[in-house]
Amino acid sequence: MLTIEHIREAHARIAPHVHRTPVVTSRSFDEAASETAERRVFFKCENLQRTGSFKFRGATNSILCLTEDERRRGVAAFSSGNHAQAVALAARKAGVRASIVMPSDAPRAKVEATRAYGAEVIFYDRQREDREQVARRVAEREGSLLVPPFDDYRIMAGQGTCALELLEDVPDLDCILVPCSGGGLFAGVSTATKAINPGIHCFPVEPETADDTLQSFRKGERVTTPPSSTIADGLRVVTPGKLTFPILQRMAEDVLMVSDEEIAATLGFILFRMKLLVEPSGAAAASAVLFQKLPPDARRIGVVLSGGNVDPEALVKLLEERN
Amino acid sequence: MLTIEHIREAHARIAPHVHRTPVVTSRSFDEAASETAERRVFFKCENLQRTGSFKFRGATNSILCLTEDERRRGVAAFSSGNHAQAVALAARKAGVRASIVMPSDAPRAKVEATRAYGAEVIFYDRQREDREQVARRVAEREGSLLVPPFDDYRIMAGQGTCALELLEDVPDLDCILVPCSGGGLFAGVSTATKAINPGIHCFPVEPETADDTLQSFRKGERVTTPPSSTIADGLRVVTPGKLTFPILQRMAEDVLMVSDEEIAATLGFILFRMKLLVEPSGAAAASAVLFQKLPPDARRIGVVLSGGNVDPEALVKLLEERN
Repeated sequence: MLTIEHIREAHARIAPHVHRTPVVTSRSFDEAASETAERRVFFKCENLQRTGSFKFRGATNSILCLTEDERRRGVAAFSSGNHAQAVALAARKAGVRASIVMPSDAPRAKVEATRAYGAEVIFYDRQREDREQVARRVAEREGSLLVPPFDDYRIMAGQGTCALELLEDVPDLDCILVPCSGGGLFAGVSTATKAINPGIHCFPVEPETADDTLQSFRKGERVTTPPSSTIADGLRVVTPGKLTFPILQRMAEDVLMVSDEEIAATLGFILFRMKLLVEPSGAAAASAVLFQKLPPDARRIGVVLSGGNVDPEALVKLLEERN
Repeated sequence: MLTIEHIREAHARIAPHVHRTPVVTSRSFDEAASETAERRVFFKCENLQRTGSFKFRGATNSILCLTEDERRRGVAAFSSGNHAQAVALAARKAGVRASIVMPSDAPRAKVEATRAYGAEVIFYDRQREDREQVARRVAEREGSLLVPPFDDYRIMAGQGTCALELLEDVPDLDCILVPCSGGGLFAGVSTATKAINPGIHCFPVEPETADDTLQSFRKGERVTTPPSSTIADGLRVVTPGKLTFPILQRMAEDVLMVSDEEIAATLGFILFRMKLLVEPSGAAAASAVLFQKLPPDARRIGVVLSGGNVDPEALVKLLEERN
């Protein structure tokens, strides 16, 4: 179960350790997004969160919930991205050992960032091994606890804290949009939001080519889609979580879709007009607003810019393709 | 004359029209800058100012000071960069006509941005004409008032308002660094700073290849240097202002130099670690901190990130050269 009380407790627990990220507005974004109705958009800047994404909230909450015995045994996680860095730093700050399982072909910058945060990196072969199994084996061998990326109530409660802060800063919203992969961020954000004001509509946003959440939402049960190569590399999960999906079914108004071209254009808009770096996954929710995927009556809109970790090479490629 | 009172009056005048830009900190920047001493850096984000740079402060102050007669006659300015956009938007918001003189080979994006802010763009041939003379001719023909980019007390007072805000947010600084071109920003910032706390050291920062301010400061009189092709295109002015230089002589602790490579590396650090886009000129002051140009006893440091207007093509080029 996930309730607003869990999210409030998580917030009290993690607040001394995470950034209270700013909420920014942009007149040029508002103008560009106001084709069909006058819109005001409030961006919760989790790209400015420690380790560069909202994942640090959930990871910190998980690790601060460990028992003394669990702390001694350490933690493990599987991720090639933001969850890895989040668990690594959250563990280091709590004085807990962390092992992160990453594919052997992970970008060097991500491997080094994870090591720089003090974690041990354990490689696996993406072609021949399943990362979750590898991580479970590592956890078993080391006697450590696996910190899952999304399908866990402590993680969801941590991610939901960003909605508490957003609604404290801007209470009168018509809707909130968040990028959706495994659904941990959406579960936390929508649970907090609906408890505070049931009238606020909550929308998860997915890339068109990784629409497992949309298909599952329409069908009423969890669907697994083929692997996607969307530029939103944080949103390539192929099926919603077991625990997150029932929450999403209850809380989501609808699931919105954006194309890779729309995501890239939005990333460019946010970079050059708003001067903020977001990663492709981090731009997905904003993209749904900019490209008019919302019902016309949505006027005051909360958007989570979920992360800002993009490699220089990847950014150059994105900007070149955009030109 | 420029006094703190002028700057306070300017602040009261422009505050309803300009963004109160955030002051941000970054643990990773602090760590990287703390080679010789433990440092804490406070960034005043004028890249998040309207029109993307601090220039909007001075332009707004100038235009709000116009008499009714001057307002009717309109304004003119010469600039291919941030001052053009600042004057264009400040004029439009005040209901004043603006003509901006730009080189005929100015980047299309900048011409279009200036027009989008409602100004008329008048081109001149950079090889054969002097832009200041062209602008004076335009102003004479149209009966309009020239809004100079830096050598003007109203402009300096407007630019100085960002220091009032910074010191309100973070009073106990050891020093403040700002990028320096014609010296308008430095004159305003240092005048405000020294009046509030004479113990705070003020440093203008220049590109090595555009060191007219350093040479002038050392020699005790205004020196003109050959044109520079530094990547910090906003800092290519070849001689300090007549009015700004005497202020700089009194207020500057020293003039600091940074290389183009240091500027590019700093821009990359701010982009990928702090997730903020700054233009090369806007990164100059931060670069002097990151590359240890300050005396070792400077611990609490204010830095103005002066602007964030960089073309996509220029950013790609910068990032590629950096790799």
